[in-house]
Amino acid sequence: MNVQDLIIKKRDGQELTREEIEFLVDGISNGTIPDYQLAAWLMAVYFKGMNAAEIRHLSLAMAYSGEVVDLSEVDGITVDKHSTGGVGDKTTMVVVPLVAAAGVPIAKMSGRGLGHTGGTIDKFEAIPGFRVELPHNRFVEQVNRVKAAVISQSGNLVPADKRLYAIRDVTGTVESIPLIASSIMSKKIASGARGIVLDVKVGSGAFMKNKEKALELAKDMVKIGQGADRQVVAVLSNMYQPLGHMVGNSLEVREAIATLRGEGPSDLEEISVVLAAHMLVLGGRHADVNLAAGEIRQLLKSGRGLDKFKEIVEAQGGRLDYDIPACGMPRARFKAALRVNRSGYVTELNAEEVGRAAMLAGAGRERLGDSVDYTAGVKLIRKCGDYVENGDAIAMIYGGNEAKIETAKKRLAQAYRFGDQQPQPVPLLIDTIK
Amino acid sequence: MNVQDLIIKKRDGQELTREEIEFLVDGISNGTIPDYQLAAWLMAVYFKGMNAAEIRHLSLAMAYSGEVVDLSEVDGITVDKHSTGGVGDKTTMVVVPLVAAAGVPIAKMSGRGLGHTGGTIDKFEAIPGFRVELPHNRFVEQVNRVKAAVISQSGNLVPADKRLYAIRDVTGTVESIPLIASSIMSKKIASGARGIVLDVKVGSGAFMKNKEKALELAKDMVKIGQGADRQVVAVLSNMYQPLGHMVGNSLEVREAIATLRGEGPSDLEEISVVLAAHMLVLGGRHADVNLAAGEIRQLLKSGRGLDKFKEIVEAQGGRLDYDIPACGMPRARFKAALRVNRSGYVTELNAEEVGRAAMLAGAGRERLGDSVDYTAGVKLIRKCGDYVENGDAIAMIYGGNEAKIETAKKRLAQAYRFGDQQPQPVPLLIDTIK
Repeated sequence: MNVQDLIIKKRDGQELTREEIEFLVDGISNGTIPDYQLAAWLMAVYFKGMNAAEIRHLSLAMAYSGEVVDLSEVDGITVDKHSTGGVGDKTTMVVVPLVAAAGVPIAKMSGRGLGHTGGTIDKFEAIPGFRVELPHNRFVEQVNRVKAAVISQSGNLVPADKRLYAIRDVTGTVESIPLIASSIMSKKIASGARGIVLDVKVGSGAFMKNKEKALELAKDMVKIGQGADRQVVAVLSNMYQPLGHMVGNSLEVREAIATLRGEGPSDLEEISVVLAAHMLVLGGRHADVNLAAGEIRQLLKSGRGLDKFKEIVEAQGGRLDYDIPACGMPRARFKAALRVNRSGYVTELNAEEVGRAAMLAGAGRERLGDSVDYTAGVKLIRKCGDYVENGDAIAMIYGGNEAKIETAKKRLAQAYRFGDQQPQPVPLLIDTIK
Repeated sequence: MNVQDLIIKKRDGQELTREEIEFLVDGISNGTIPDYQLAAWLMAVYFKGMNAAEIRHLSLAMAYSGEVVDLSEVDGITVDKHSTGGVGDKTTMVVVPLVAAAGVPIAKMSGRGLGHTGGTIDKFEAIPGFRVELPHNRFVEQVNRVKAAVISQSGNLVPADKRLYAIRDVTGTVESIPLIASSIMSKKIASGARGIVLDVKVGSGAFMKNKEKALELAKDMVKIGQGADRQVVAVLSNMYQPLGHMVGNSLEVREAIATLRGEGPSDLEEISVVLAAHMLVLGGRHADVNLAAGEIRQLLKSGRGLDKFKEIVEAQGGRLDYDIPACGMPRARFKAALRVNRSGYVTELNAEEVGRAAMLAGAGRERLGDSVDYTAGVKLIRKCGDYVENGDAIAMIYGGNEAKIETAKKRLAQAYRFGDQQPQPVPLLIDTIK
């Protein structure tokens, strides 16, 4: 087999066979195919797409290109969730304890944040003492004992995707649905869970800016999972503005805890309940998603979700004091208020801009390897549809560096748009694909 | 400026500005843009094309990326010709002396052959003693004195195209009209002639397999030339079977000489007269191409074309004896006849297959740097439309290696197709674009 022939085949819109795709993935993994041929192939895929069979072959070949997590020693049907990335998205911190509290095991491997989107691992690391690296046997042992563990993704997971993504990132080939779908699903398959709930965000703050593309992505991912003998449900939701009010690591931990107390923002609670309910169904706890949602709401109300959160944090060495403000996490040295110079309604709150502002305050990374200020972030006092009076503080910016806070504040001001008419509320949930 | 942005711009079908294209060509020349980004950009160009302005900017930027030949000291309007490559295409050896004999200066830089197509420089090198490397001042001096010189293309001509072509060659991005057009024209512009006649071949033995694509290429190249202040004419001709009867270096020298004697095959003579006539018009010798063709035919008939050929060969150190068979060039040690086992008409003679057979006999290179057997090649005794009797020899294969000749013979047999009906003759000339 010859790489050039496979590039031309794809360029001419023909289907690649399973053997051809495995040959490509082998060449990606062992370095025998040079970057420039992969770049040309990726651009051909960008233009010509891949059909369901090709996407499945690519995802599976990538999934098995490196380490594959063995969860066979976990009791029960292990479930996982994945979000396509959002701003202020702390659902994992809410969903994991709720699902575990219902008795469904969840062995979660997460990543760090980059650019304007945060990463779950950074959020857990904002908890003093929380260990995100566990050896495999301790990981499995904790999942069996506590029903949940959250660790950082192994560096050996899906090496083929790592190389491919690095090339896509600099060759204008990131925005390709089949490549996004197989990149996500190869990691999910390699992570070992049998049931996977995908949280696909649509809108200004999400990777997918329009609904049609997001639907296509969701359908592709569900199909890949089914082809790999996994149960998959994708939930499409709007991310036209950030989820909840807090953006930034410690701030999001606090908001997740408040939500588990039943005092969280309604959008965060709503999406968390839906995702957790689907996970209970995939985990075999309920046949009906509405019954599952009922149990999740009960776990929220009773405080058993919060108890489970405490249990997970303690199991992984985290130290929080739930009875004091900020739960005992370090607080930002500096803060600044963003005020408005007009009255009216917030008509737009661009999630990506908010994410960039939080990153500039110190909450995120511009480049891989940059350090993160856990205390930094943004609190959105006013969101879409809220009325503001001239002079009101509409947001607070926090962090350990005054200059960064000022830069972040200027950026944050650009995220807001105002008008005289109250905008129509946008429903959070769009669709469910199984 | 950022390469990734330019890849995305082209991917999304937008026009690149002159500055952006110059930035790319600079990055190609000085190595600051990595191969993988060029590969992605090339594939985006493959899919989205380039408009006339972009093609012109690319050609000019590449033309000036390295050495540019200064022909200002040549008396008169220097003309050049370029063929898009064919099998058995020895027109340069016929056209150059005819044009020079009419007094129009021709400073020809040519390349070597690769794959199934021969190269003019290999053909001239088949002449014992012929020097294809001349210092610039001797090159110009010979053009002024003899009106013609043929040398090997400088290694420093259009380095940006060299790098780009090497990437295209392994990334499935060769077959892109704007890229082919700018690759050819950048070299023609850098070669310094004011008038350029393009010999664009169409058909099974040519790079362009269909007429529409060839027309598009011709039009693009004419436009590029005009944008660079050159006079350009493109002549489209069929290359459904090889030109003339001889394929292979010494064999083609002999056929070119026979043609200059007025004893050549009619297709070779016809295309040579047309190309040479256009060159006389561009060189200012005639206003009308038919009058120019009349003079060329006269030069053929009078033997003044052949005299000029002898003069050029002598000026560059070549030694031929025009009164003996093979003109004194070494003859092949071995030969074999290809015979038919049926009677009927030759309905097809695939030029590319003939070219590959000649290459296998030793006449060409599979890879750059391979050595060439000047005595090797193929003589096509029967061509399309000819009647053959069972047992007839339809072709001869020559060369210095018996095993290679046998391999070549098997390949050559595949080039022929036979039938009971005589096929309609295909006209040689298709169109002229100016």
